[in-house]
Amino acid sequence: MLVGDKSYQTLWLHPEDEQVISVIDQRFLPFEFRVEDLHTPAEVFMAIREMHVRGAPLIGVTAAAGMYLALFQPPDEKEITAWLEEQALYLKSARPTAVNLSMAVDRQLRKILLAPTVEEMRAASKEDLQAFIAEEIDNCRKIGEYGLPLIEEISRHKKGNPVNILTHCNAGWLACIDFGTATAPIYMAHDAGIPVHVWVSETRPRNQGFRLTAWELKQHGVPYTLVTDNACGHILQKGMADMVITGTDRTTLNGDVANKIGTYLKAIAAKANGVPFYVAVPSTSIDWTMDDGAAIPIEERSENEVRFADGFANGKAQAVRLAPLHSPVFNPAFDVTPGRLLTGFITEHGICKAERDDLLRLFPGKVPYIKEK
Amino acid sequence: MLVGDKSYQTLWLHPEDEQVISVIDQRFLPFEFRVEDLHTPAEVFMAIREMHVRGAPLIGVTAAAGMYLALFQPPDEKEITAWLEEQALYLKSARPTAVNLSMAVDRQLRKILLAPTVEEMRAASKEDLQAFIAEEIDNCRKIGEYGLPLIEEISRHKKGNPVNILTHCNAGWLACIDFGTATAPIYMAHDAGIPVHVWVSETRPRNQGFRLTAWELKQHGVPYTLVTDNACGHILQKGMADMVITGTDRTTLNGDVANKIGTYLKAIAAKANGVPFYVAVPSTSIDWTMDDGAAIPIEERSENEVRFADGFANGKAQAVRLAPLHSPVFNPAFDVTPGRLLTGFITEHGICKAERDDLLRLFPGKVPYIKEK
Repeated sequence: MLVGDKSYQTLWLHPEDEQVISVIDQRFLPFEFRVEDLHTPAEVFMAIREMHVRGAPLIGVTAAAGMYLALFQPPDEKEITAWLEEQALYLKSARPTAVNLSMAVDRQLRKILLAPTVEEMRAASKEDLQAFIAEEIDNCRKIGEYGLPLIEEISRHKKGNPVNILTHCNAGWLACIDFGTATAPIYMAHDAGIPVHVWVSETRPRNQGFRLTAWELKQHGVPYTLVTDNACGHILQKGMADMVITGTDRTTLNGDVANKIGTYLKAIAAKANGVPFYVAVPSTSIDWTMDDGAAIPIEERSENEVRFADGFANGKAQAVRLAPLHSPVFNPAFDVTPGRLLTGFITEHGICKAERDDLLRLFPGKVPYIKEK
Repeated sequence: MLVGDKSYQTLWLHPEDEQVISVIDQRFLPFEFRVEDLHTPAEVFMAIREMHVRGAPLIGVTAAAGMYLALFQPPDEKEITAWLEEQALYLKSARPTAVNLSMAVDRQLRKILLAPTVEEMRAASKEDLQAFIAEEIDNCRKIGEYGLPLIEEISRHKKGNPVNILTHCNAGWLACIDFGTATAPIYMAHDAGIPVHVWVSETRPRNQGFRLTAWELKQHGVPYTLVTDNACGHILQKGMADMVITGTDRTTLNGDVANKIGTYLKAIAAKANGVPFYVAVPSTSIDWTMDDGAAIPIEERSENEVRFADGFANGKAQAVRLAPLHSPVFNPAFDVTPGRLLTGFITEHGICKAERDDLLRLFPGKVPYIKEK
């Protein structure tokens, strides 16, 4: 997508140095556009853990890139399998909720371990990383194509008045490689000349709505309005949103959706007020081994994310303390929305209900692998 | 209530200067404790409008004090009735949602206009202002007494484990004169040795939860934990809150409740998860002329409240910008929670259901005055 006049993705292989993966360091947006070069699995781990990169699809691809970088610093060759397995465990521990992370690392590990030499491992890893990046971009494009008719239909009903879409957090191109998941149908509608307007919810404590989604939409010229997370109930109650679209960090077979904390409140208010709520779900965010959202591990993050707000003042990025010193904090980063509250999923294979049978209809090859208990 | 070792109320008549009303300037809490002296209706208007004081009961009392101060700067005596009526209209326009404001101003105006001379007007105004303050304190004390058994009962069920109470915004003593509405039963339970723990929700955009409620509870030694507004759905879903208590800015006859933006989302999540939700309602926050919450005017406040976060950095109060420059904002300050989502009201006359008949049972003298259409 465009940043100013230049086209960017969130992650790319450095064109001149095969031992470098470049990413947009999202901690400084929207105040500063910074690119960070990653050289080692440890740097990748920190970039994921500390949210230089975030968003389930991008976390997956970045972790896969971490496995690729691991091949440039192995110990002696006969220990390389143990080294890679250790790096895989390490990378998978960076964050617990997004299923993309472990899936992507395991995918890389399988490809790498089939190759007989380090040289061939690097080639196999790079080839699969590039294929994975292309697949994730393609997933988003297809989610856009399948989601577009939903917006078109509302637009027809509203006789061309702007379609008001509420989203939460950032499930835009910054959360993926390009296009985004929840935003893909929005960008596609906008580009097709359908008037759309996006309610951007702040998404405390990390403010990905205000920092990232607003920035993305502004760069692309899509009309948007900032609202506090608190205001979203009022907006849904008053008929000011025609639909809700969010992303997901992990979707289970029964249709439950773990997503950024606050998604559940929006889903319950949308359901109560008859507003359609779609989740954009690339298949890489579906946990085929998990039946029920209650089993999804919910990450608890630092108290200081809640105690402070990150922003911009005096010409630089700056944090301010919001509460009395040493106040205790509970900071769950995700919540689980039951599938029964959702209108449906927009996937790269089409639209389905948020339930097991309809999900498996779209992905017939994905016979779920059930872990032994 | 205590601030350090000293007992305070939010507003008081200056002991040495009858032309001064003192208030705690709440804009600087929790970082700095400042007292502001108000001398004129214009200063009172600004203090309400710019939220030096806030909270429906305190807004009412402060506006009443504005009428009292108006008596020290009248034009010549034969124009005093017109002057007072003009000041009343002016003060009532400071904020639209809390019904306490217009009720309190009208109450003062009625008392004042019965007196034949300016001197007697001042005496009548002062006497009624002091009575009004005493009544509001008494309302809160009684709300505490009626609410206490609700907490005691949960405590017995939990065999003395802490009762977890979720609140929103600040309906504490800082919103009133003393004790608070939603907090009164909590303080009373704590003082009676019942273990309580309060989930304090941030309450963006003005952060009254983190700034005021957390500060109050900390001063009084009540255990609390900060959570983002987004986290409250997860807390209610996971059974981590035993009950919810909030305040109200205006309650209508059918039991609908206008309160700080975000209350509706908590109520809908509490209802879905079977968590009792009580609203602490002093009768001064009941609009006896309004049948239905849909008619309540919802204040929209400045875009900059949402674009910026106020906090503390480098040893001083400071704001940081949170989003791209010039982002459009929608900032409704209140939402309306339908009475059917609520378990009940805690009033100074006892507990009732959030519905017309049960409300009028508690207040039999209050035959509703229906405005001519």
